[in-house]
Amino acid sequence: MASNERRLLILAEGRSADPHYGKTARGVIRYRPEDIVAILDTERADGDTQDGFPVVRSVEEAQQYGPTIALVGVATQGGRFPPKWRDLLKDSIRAGLDLENGLHEFVSDDAELVELAREHGVELRDLRKAPPGLNVPTGANLTHGATVLLTVGSDCAIGKMTVSLELDREARSRGIKSEFVPTGQTGMAIAGWGISVDAVVSDFIAGAAERLVVEGVGRGGELLLVEGQGSILHPFYSGVTLGLIHGSAPHGYVLCHKAGQLFVEDDERFPIPPLGELADLHARMSLLARPATVRAIALNTRELDEAAARRAVEETEADTGLPTDDPVRFGAGKLVDAIEPLLG
Amino acid sequence: MASNERRLLILAEGRSADPHYGKTARGVIRYRPEDIVAILDTERADGDTQDGFPVVRSVEEAQQYGPTIALVGVATQGGRFPPKWRDLLKDSIRAGLDLENGLHEFVSDDAELVELAREHGVELRDLRKAPPGLNVPTGANLTHGATVLLTVGSDCAIGKMTVSLELDREARSRGIKSEFVPTGQTGMAIAGWGISVDAVVSDFIAGAAERLVVEGVGRGGELLLVEGQGSILHPFYSGVTLGLIHGSAPHGYVLCHKAGQLFVEDDERFPIPPLGELADLHARMSLLARPATVRAIALNTRELDEAAARRAVEETEADTGLPTDDPVRFGAGKLVDAIEPLLG
Repeated sequence: MASNERRLLILAEGRSADPHYGKTARGVIRYRPEDIVAILDTERADGDTQDGFPVVRSVEEAQQYGPTIALVGVATQGGRFPPKWRDLLKDSIRAGLDLENGLHEFVSDDAELVELAREHGVELRDLRKAPPGLNVPTGANLTHGATVLLTVGSDCAIGKMTVSLELDREARSRGIKSEFVPTGQTGMAIAGWGISVDAVVSDFIAGAAERLVVEGVGRGGELLLVEGQGSILHPFYSGVTLGLIHGSAPHGYVLCHKAGQLFVEDDERFPIPPLGELADLHARMSLLARPATVRAIALNTRELDEAAARRAVEETEADTGLPTDDPVRFGAGKLVDAIEPLLG
Repeated sequence: MASNERRLLILAEGRSADPHYGKTARGVIRYRPEDIVAILDTERADGDTQDGFPVVRSVEEAQQYGPTIALVGVATQGGRFPPKWRDLLKDSIRAGLDLENGLHEFVSDDAELVELAREHGVELRDLRKAPPGLNVPTGANLTHGATVLLTVGSDCAIGKMTVSLELDREARSRGIKSEFVPTGQTGMAIAGWGISVDAVVSDFIAGAAERLVVEGVGRGGELLLVEGQGSILHPFYSGVTLGLIHGSAPHGYVLCHKAGQLFVEDDERFPIPPLGELADLHARMSLLARPATVRAIALNTRELDEAAARRAVEETEADTGLPTDDPVRFGAGKLVDAIEPLLG
């Protein structure tokens, strides 16, 4: 049962039983289960459960669990809303639920849904839409007093969000006032706030990142675990990465890498430099007003067996001289040990 | 007189006699005088000229010179169009001129102007507006066959566009098939094409940069002189800079610096590293598939007397071991000598 106002009905139409049924749904289930009240999928049988949550076949049936928000938790075919989905969205609005949507198709640009939302007094939140009023940084990123730790990486989609969330969980368990700071739509669905920085006009990436850390402080964070994006050497997304580095102005980095990966996007034209070099490059590219170094390496060993995973961790540690671990597999303790001294 | 279809009437209302009357107007006058037919300013006297061009007091009076495009050449108060300006824009449209506008206020979002433009069959081009259909790079930035040279720098607003234009002029005078590739609204107004990369959604900066170099090749360029933006260590705009680096995939850089400047944005929190280090950092941050180094340094000596300027050039050369010159003051010959070997 949800422990607060954020009581999520996850819309997982047709895909709730698929083990890969959406990064968003899986992320919320793993990191914010206390926010979930039910999962909706009209194709499941009466009385089904999923990951311990009741599965309902209609918004009406979900009402017994008292949801406040309907979250689009799986991708639709092609990212568009088919008629079946539109009906679910309209049912949710009519039931008084706010909508949260991480797809590229915006609910807040849909005249019919906007009108219905106005009638029923609910909010339509498109997680990939840039908020209004962004600008360049004000300098507040250098004066807020909290400690900022950014995950960076050798590539996209290797687990930077997950590492930030695991560090946050471990830090909280140690009594540290930690806040996960979301910078992409999945992280936002998990935490219930944030900005999808890759959707921001490029002049304002750093300003958006600054706004996020300031909000993290406002939420009580003394340690801000900022979700990284892309890689400074990524041929497509490096601009987002560097803007996020300079705008969030971290005191330190955790460098994420998938064990054994040699090329960015597995494309032989883009060889990943040795991790020690990549760590050094992050130090040199840090904001001139906020020197920072890589404090630890988070190794994604998902594709290795346990013995090979332990070997990969040891070898990376020996090669780089940096504390290394796979926080998903072996726990985030060693990595939090490495960043705790930053808290002073 | 204009030598081609691009026959510009520069709208410089109320400011044509001001020596600082707008970066756009000055840039076009210096680098594309052959495109200008007249300058419009209702406040000037009958028969006035400016920089050798006739000054007219109305669009009607300009018609004798056969303009095809009205270019907003000076900033209006606060970046908005006052009533007087709206009348000039409407007169231009009614006279069958396309409009080019580099201000933040878009003419193509103005219902009245859009309707009028439709009636008169003219185009409204907002230079700061991102074009539709952008995406991530396709890889064409690595296979087009031309040589790409990007200007980079220790700060914004120190003359990267000007250096690219001076290099282009010198290269053309040597018979090299050179193209200036504009990445901001002033460069676009000068060259008549381009994308203002800082207005692009941040996921697509590199894709926009790739599109620009591909278009430069399409225009016949064998040497592409890409206008740089920002600085990789700039606290606000570094994301744009790095996306431009990785998307344009240069074969070499010219590093621009203002002689004597110690801090980014003259802000003591952001000390500029020694130029040799900054040059090395650009080499290390280059696209993994396209290694590149700084080939020369363009020193902006505007604020020095001639003897001090020559000393600054010599000292920079001695400190960095890189060919150095102020191409505006002393000509671009030495810098083009330094980049010509890239042409193979």
